[in-house]
Amino acid sequence: MSGPRERLVVIGGDAAGMSAAAQARRLRSAPELEVVVLEQGGDVSFSACGIPYWVGGQVAGRAELIARTPAEFAAQDITVHTGTRVAGIDLDAGSVVTGSGTRYSYDALVVGTGGRPARPPVPGLDAPGVFGVHRLDDGAAVRTAIDAGARRGLVLGGGYIGLEMAEALQRRGLEVTVVLADPLPMQLLDADMGKRVCAGLRAMGMAVHTDQAVREVLVDSAGRACGVRTDVGSYDADLVVLGLGMGPEVTLAAEAGLALGTTGAIEVDHSQRCRDHPEVFAAGDCAQTFSRITGEPAHVALGTHANKQGRVAGSVIGGRPARFPGVLGTAVTKVGNLEIARTGLCTTQAEQAGFGYRTDTIEATTRAGYFPGAEEIAVKLISERGSGRLLGAQIVGGPGSGKRIDVLATAIWASMTAEDVAGTDLSYAPPFSPVYDPVAVAARAVSRTEQG
Amino acid sequence: MSGPRERLVVIGGDAAGMSAAAQARRLRSAPELEVVVLEQGGDVSFSACGIPYWVGGQVAGRAELIARTPAEFAAQDITVHTGTRVAGIDLDAGSVVTGSGTRYSYDALVVGTGGRPARPPVPGLDAPGVFGVHRLDDGAAVRTAIDAGARRGLVLGGGYIGLEMAEALQRRGLEVTVVLADPLPMQLLDADMGKRVCAGLRAMGMAVHTDQAVREVLVDSAGRACGVRTDVGSYDADLVVLGLGMGPEVTLAAEAGLALGTTGAIEVDHSQRCRDHPEVFAAGDCAQTFSRITGEPAHVALGTHANKQGRVAGSVIGGRPARFPGVLGTAVTKVGNLEIARTGLCTTQAEQAGFGYRTDTIEATTRAGYFPGAEEIAVKLISERGSGRLLGAQIVGGPGSGKRIDVLATAIWASMTAEDVAGTDLSYAPPFSPVYDPVAVAARAVSRTEQG
Repeated sequence: MSGPRERLVVIGGDAAGMSAAAQARRLRSAPELEVVVLEQGGDVSFSACGIPYWVGGQVAGRAELIARTPAEFAAQDITVHTGTRVAGIDLDAGSVVTGSGTRYSYDALVVGTGGRPARPPVPGLDAPGVFGVHRLDDGAAVRTAIDAGARRGLVLGGGYIGLEMAEALQRRGLEVTVVLADPLPMQLLDADMGKRVCAGLRAMGMAVHTDQAVREVLVDSAGRACGVRTDVGSYDADLVVLGLGMGPEVTLAAEAGLALGTTGAIEVDHSQRCRDHPEVFAAGDCAQTFSRITGEPAHVALGTHANKQGRVAGSVIGGRPARFPGVLGTAVTKVGNLEIARTGLCTTQAEQAGFGYRTDTIEATTRAGYFPGAEEIAVKLISERGSGRLLGAQIVGGPGSGKRIDVLATAIWASMTAEDVAGTDLSYAPPFSPVYDPVAVAARAVSRTEQG
Repeated sequence: MSGPRERLVVIGGDAAGMSAAAQARRLRSAPELEVVVLEQGGDVSFSACGIPYWVGGQVAGRAELIARTPAEFAAQDITVHTGTRVAGIDLDAGSVVTGSGTRYSYDALVVGTGGRPARPPVPGLDAPGVFGVHRLDDGAAVRTAIDAGARRGLVLGGGYIGLEMAEALQRRGLEVTVVLADPLPMQLLDADMGKRVCAGLRAMGMAVHTDQAVREVLVDSAGRACGVRTDVGSYDADLVVLGLGMGPEVTLAAEAGLALGTTGAIEVDHSQRCRDHPEVFAAGDCAQTFSRITGEPAHVALGTHANKQGRVAGSVIGGRPARFPGVLGTAVTKVGNLEIARTGLCTTQAEQAGFGYRTDTIEATTRAGYFPGAEEIAVKLISERGSGRLLGAQIVGGPGSGKRIDVLATAIWASMTAEDVAGTDLSYAPPFSPVYDPVAVAARAVSRTEQG
């Protein structure tokens, strides 16, 4: 099978890009395929998801968030150029050019440019003292600001990054204020479950201001951020964290003429190939994906999907067919002792997708009620009327609650009905669960009512 | 729908019996159906599974292990007679008679006589100082022995009850010795996983003696148990706990002429009806059930099944069709910080069932490797060769490991393949999981190898 040596170029050296590179290398050896990764930052293969825990002091150092270094990839014959910004993609020529003018021709290209943190178009956002949560340098900067004496932290946004940063700041001793444009935190939860989260944040001593669009980041006489002004009021702060979610970073792709999908992310098929350019792949936060349930386009910025999609692209480039099977939108997070998880469709999404649905919410305990550490857990199920098929699930509760979402994600993946889940042989012992696991209790509530 | 009032008699007032009684009552009101429960002991609806934690001091009192009292059932028009032993069932007459001679005719009968702890046929087993783990009185007796100064505890048997009692005794400050006839603890694990458990027990400072059949319980001059003698050696002890597993208690059923199945438990159909006696139901530890995977008869003594089977019987008696969907043999337990779980077929069972199977075992961490509290976890999958369908799974690891078995139980329930599981959108955040959950890592190991 020897022929001219081909070259894979990967733009972006985080989860998607490095997974693609590593998988292509597994399937095709160095004499067959050269693999070159171009990364604009200084790190590859780092855990952006870990930044809040580094800021919060639970993770000791920056190095721990780096899964593998360029030297480790080099040992696998994967060439990584850090500090190398790609300035353009020439699809016709099959090459990319870097900011410093180096041109790399490619036989296959993986675009793994990642996400772009949402930034509200308000004055003051570029002031010192306003921080993102995107790159390891962002985490270092927040740490420096805390070490320098910041006492009041303000988080814009109530998605999981925002809440994780709120916890981190509180762990470091800051007074924490969370400001949301939405009526509740965690917009991918239904309102009743979002209320539980909001109450949890307040019980932790955080100030939560909802339904307030930010209008301005206030700056002091030295030009540093000192608070925010919303359409309702003003809140002082020594540092401001942007936790407003993540869009796709598609500047390069769009300029090159790659098609974008309805979500604004790069349109790809189930093998992560770009439409009209079968030699170009996109994966991770820059790529559009699809709902496993509805088949509709979706954009979900999450490391798990990035890894899997990169791996699919790398497989195809390596000569082995592969398909990404879609997403449910499963997510888990925690704030203090409150665990929050969701999967599948929330009621808004079920409605948009045209499902006739019902909801059932139960309250139970994470362990046998008499066992120490038994905590409250609420489980909400969204199921299709008539068939009883599960469409979505949400969990809010104490330690031990969150990971139970995986049972429901698996059930939805397999198109199980609530009755199926109620019958499933789930594990029981008093330190782990009541005799009926809360997941089964919720499923029983659906199936009992569906039976009339 | 009024007619002559019928009577449901339930023999045994624990999980199966009380679930049947409660469900029948939900569906048929007191003027239609009288519900009478006859319980030989003093308690109904208690958690035998909680006894080790009461002994160990994690659960404060006996009352906490009682889910509901006879008075609470009486408020639902369910009559409970405790201290009432049933002496015989007359299937032809449709009646039962108590030890004191009271006769209750029935229109429907539920046999919920529960389990019978295995007792090796050796001398000394009835000596004071030898304890079962079956009734709340057993737990009280062990507590009394510890309070009276027992320093060395010996557990016979390495199943989950045995191991939970070993932990309980150690928590109370006793030196603990575990003696097994089998080569490894947890016989429903494969040997490689059982070895991990054995190593864990020894790391906790327990003495574990394997491959030794007990020959005699040694007694001192006062007639109290003071150790055991096996075919290998003798071990001193101040108290001896029987943790040898649970068979079905079928004396009454067998004497009455109800058919027993190949497992020795009462044979029932999928609606928990006894063969040849459609008005008689059996449920819980006394009843035979079946494997969801193979359809073969099985006997699994566990509160979850007892509750569900009782509920099925109660539904049918209440006029609503219901079926018990079978068991996978899912189980979870812990010893100290070591969590142990299994579901589906182990390799021995897969072989007996005639499957061509493969096994894959992976090691990972329970959380992101850099996150505090990340602990080792080993996941073993048994899957069908060729199809990749999951047949069984076993997990041994630190806190956060055990309940992950539910994802695999759900996957097996839905006949998913390893590749399906590898693709499933499981939740990820650093405090909960590595970016690929250990369950997904194991599934990937199967599907990768199956692909060649």
